[in-house]
Amino acid sequence: MASNHEEVKLFGIVGSPFVTRVDIALNLKGVQYKLEEEKMGNFSDTLIKYNPVYKKVPVLVHNEKPISESLVILEYIDETWKQNPILPSDPYKRALARFWSKFIDDKCLNAARKVAFSLDEKEREEGYKELEVAFQFLENELKDKFFGGEEIGLVDITGVFIAFWVPILQEVIGLKLFTIEKFPKLYKWSHDFTNHQIVKEKLPNRETQLAFFKARYESLVASQ
Amino acid sequence: MASNHEEVKLFGIVGSPFVTRVDIALNLKGVQYKLEEEKMGNFSDTLIKYNPVYKKVPVLVHNEKPISESLVILEYIDETWKQNPILPSDPYKRALARFWSKFIDDKCLNAARKVAFSLDEKEREEGYKELEVAFQFLENELKDKFFGGEEIGLVDITGVFIAFWVPILQEVIGLKLFTIEKFPKLYKWSHDFTNHQIVKEKLPNRETQLAFFKARYESLVASQ
Repeated sequence: MASNHEEVKLFGIVGSPFVTRVDIALNLKGVQYKLEEEKMGNFSDTLIKYNPVYKKVPVLVHNEKPISESLVILEYIDETWKQNPILPSDPYKRALARFWSKFIDDKCLNAARKVAFSLDEKEREEGYKELEVAFQFLENELKDKFFGGEEIGLVDITGVFIAFWVPILQEVIGLKLFTIEKFPKLYKWSHDFTNHQIVKEKLPNRETQLAFFKARYESLVASQ
Repeated sequence: MASNHEEVKLFGIVGSPFVTRVDIALNLKGVQYKLEEEKMGNFSDTLIKYNPVYKKVPVLVHNEKPISESLVILEYIDETWKQNPILPSDPYKRALARFWSKFIDDKCLNAARKVAFSLDEKEREEGYKELEVAFQFLENELKDKFFGGEEIGLVDITGVFIAFWVPILQEVIGLKLFTIEKFPKLYKWSHDFTNHQIVKEKLPNRETQLAFFKARYESLVASQ
């Protein structure tokens, strides 16, 4: 499907875990693309035109055709560029990959948001417990080096938020949940995944992210 | 893939829109399966064993292998039994089908729940507005007889909740939102879809559903 004439654009924001998923997938496939940088809270008219429903990034535009929602984009990328598959070929394994990928969005993201950014102590504790349960499910599910086996796949890419951002958030708020003692396999996975060449090239700068979330957290605490 | 020796079981509850999605998809494919009926609020140990994460129906068990989450199940069914495709073959059309299918779960279900079951008037009004916006998006998206074109597909099947249950909920609470005047194409789709032979065979009894939601609504109103 790939040709020299095709145009691939990614509307995104540096530091968005959802955009980073798409960055990693395109890098894994070796697809050349242009990042159209958007500004948080002040999206361009073009972005809104391409994603009128959610009005958010990422939006992948392939030969003028826009696709929104990161998990939908990942499947599109895998179906369009066949090299280095993101999903397994067996239907049952594909179903499991989709299930755990959805699980990360359903169960880990909201819980982590509560832990890191809620002003309500009860809600923060609730988020902590939810995250602990979710991590345990993932710990049990991780059988090989990556969720995708020996190579990275859909669940790994979806989980970039856990691998890269959770340790940062943890450092900012002084949490000790995602540790090598509590989740040895998941912790090691986090290290292996963020150090994978394809992934590393697409992660935002750690110090910048740390500074950003520190400032955000401090202003949150100050507002209490 | 289908053989005479295969065993297909669907753990479900009659009257669940999520289970009905799977019922319709299996019927469309002509797959024989056994419905293992669960009781709401009192799920069997087998169900919990098969779906320890969400502990809910539907769960499809194909040759002892369990799959949860209705949208994941629909994709599995489409990949396992190739006849009468649920998803289009073109990657971009597949992406759109996945996008709108996810949209129904993200935007319509919660909004409808708020409208029908919230005790808070402000929240009910908020739900009404959200649902109106969501229906308008779907109205604009509907180009042919069905979302899938001339045949039913992923978005239609996911939307069974809108086609069948929304009119019932509307009747119960005396709402006039989903009408032929406001959403002519979507309204006609709702009629065509629920009268499609494959779909009709799998819908629960309308009067029973009406009575169930009437009782639920009345007890809700009485509790205020």
